[in-house]
Amino acid sequence: MHAETAGFYAHQMRRLDEGDAEGWAATFTEDAVFRISSRRQPMRGRAELTAGARAASDAVAAAGERLRHMTGMLEIEELPDEQMLVRATTLVYATDASGGARLHQVCDCTDILVRTASAPRTFLVKDRRIDVLGHGPVPR
Amino acid sequence: MHAETAGFYAHQMRRLDEGDAEGWAATFTEDAVFRISSRRQPMRGRAELTAGARAASDAVAAAGERLRHMTGMLEIEELPDEQMLVRATTLVYATDASGGARLHQVCDCTDILVRTASAPRTFLVKDRRIDVLGHGPVPR
Amino acid sequence: MHAETAGFYAHQMRRLDEGDAEGWAATFTEDAVFRISSRRQPMRGRAELTAGARAASDAVAAAGERLRHMTGMLEIEELPDEQMLVRATTLVYATDASGGARLHQVCDCTDILVRTASAPRTFLVKDRRIDVLGHGPVPR
Repeated sequence: MHAETAGFYAHQMRRLDEGDAEGWAATFTEDAVFRISSRRQPMRGRAELTAGARAASDAVAAAGERLRHMTGMLEIEELPDEQMLVRATTLVYATDASGGARLHQVCDCTDILVRTASAPRTFLVKDRRIDVLGHGPVPR
Repeated sequence: MHAETAGFYAHQMRRLDEGDAEGWAATFTEDAVFRISSRRQPMRGRAELTAGARAASDAVAAAGERLRHMTGMLEIEELPDEQMLVRATTLVYATDASGGARLHQVCDCTDILVRTASAPRTFLVKDRRIDVLGHGPVPR
Repeated sequence: MHAETAGFYAHQMRRLDEGDAEGWAATFTEDAVFRISSRRQPMRGRAELTAGARAASDAVAAAGERLRHMTGMLEIEELPDEQMLVRATTLVYATDASGGARLHQVCDCTDILVRTASAPRTFLVKDRRIDVLGHGPVPR
């Protein structure tokens, strides 16, 4: 289960890193709720998730940057009804057009995943809460 | 076994990151030995481990910081008597009250784990050696 | 499969970090091709891989540094003929003789692995492509 879950996060986060907003949103349930400490309002449902991911992705591209998410330290608890609580730590790195790389963010991630027969990579995120703990210094 | 072990480290390191000194010490055997290159003397047994973790955790909190450990690159070798040798790499990140994040430490970790019927998350650490290879620059 | 593969990368990358050029090259097939964006020409076969790893390793040691590779976010696709396509993200950290640590590189890694009865740790790399996305700032 740990291994399957690790594979799920690799697939999901890489969609985001590659700017595939629809592919990323498709890893959430239709009615998913996504809360991140840097936004006042949660995003709800795949249409909002797609729009949010596309806007974020466009901003990164416009800055000439690329992001790479490293999600790890998965702590998994089985819940009733084929659901799982997953706590994870995510490091986000940014690379720029001049060949620089830097730590962008350190985040805590708390998810409720559901097992769905039709899900790509076995799971879908039903509820996500991201706590952005800090941003790396931007080199001048 | 790799997956179970990865789950064990996620559980154990998160206890430390959350300041749960007793919960962290409970992931070691009663007679565990913990050596770290930054301390002259090893710590022995859960009482010393709890005290050591609490002191470290208090110092981090007093500085207005939080730590996040990312342990990975687990290389596992089965030993006799239900024991395992695990070599791992740990990155430690620090975040501060003003929203900054930085690389704090890069460490090698060499553990002997024992499989115990009564262990939370299946394993306990019997022997740990941490080699702190370097500290990240502290931004001014 | 995810777990076995994670163990394979831990073993392989640690050989490199320890300067064991032959041990590292032995995790590739005899006729492996290795492309990295920082070199014009691919390396082919174990002899070239060993020589390349030794030269890189000697340069790191001459600078008084050590490297630690953290490979994660493994996305695995089964291919015919006992082969697997693996996409991964690798963070490379450098530590120096004065006790400093820093982000060295952020890389994308795309591998074709083959399952071989005689392989150490179950797999061998047949084809590797490394895209170095960026380098961390070098502290003065």
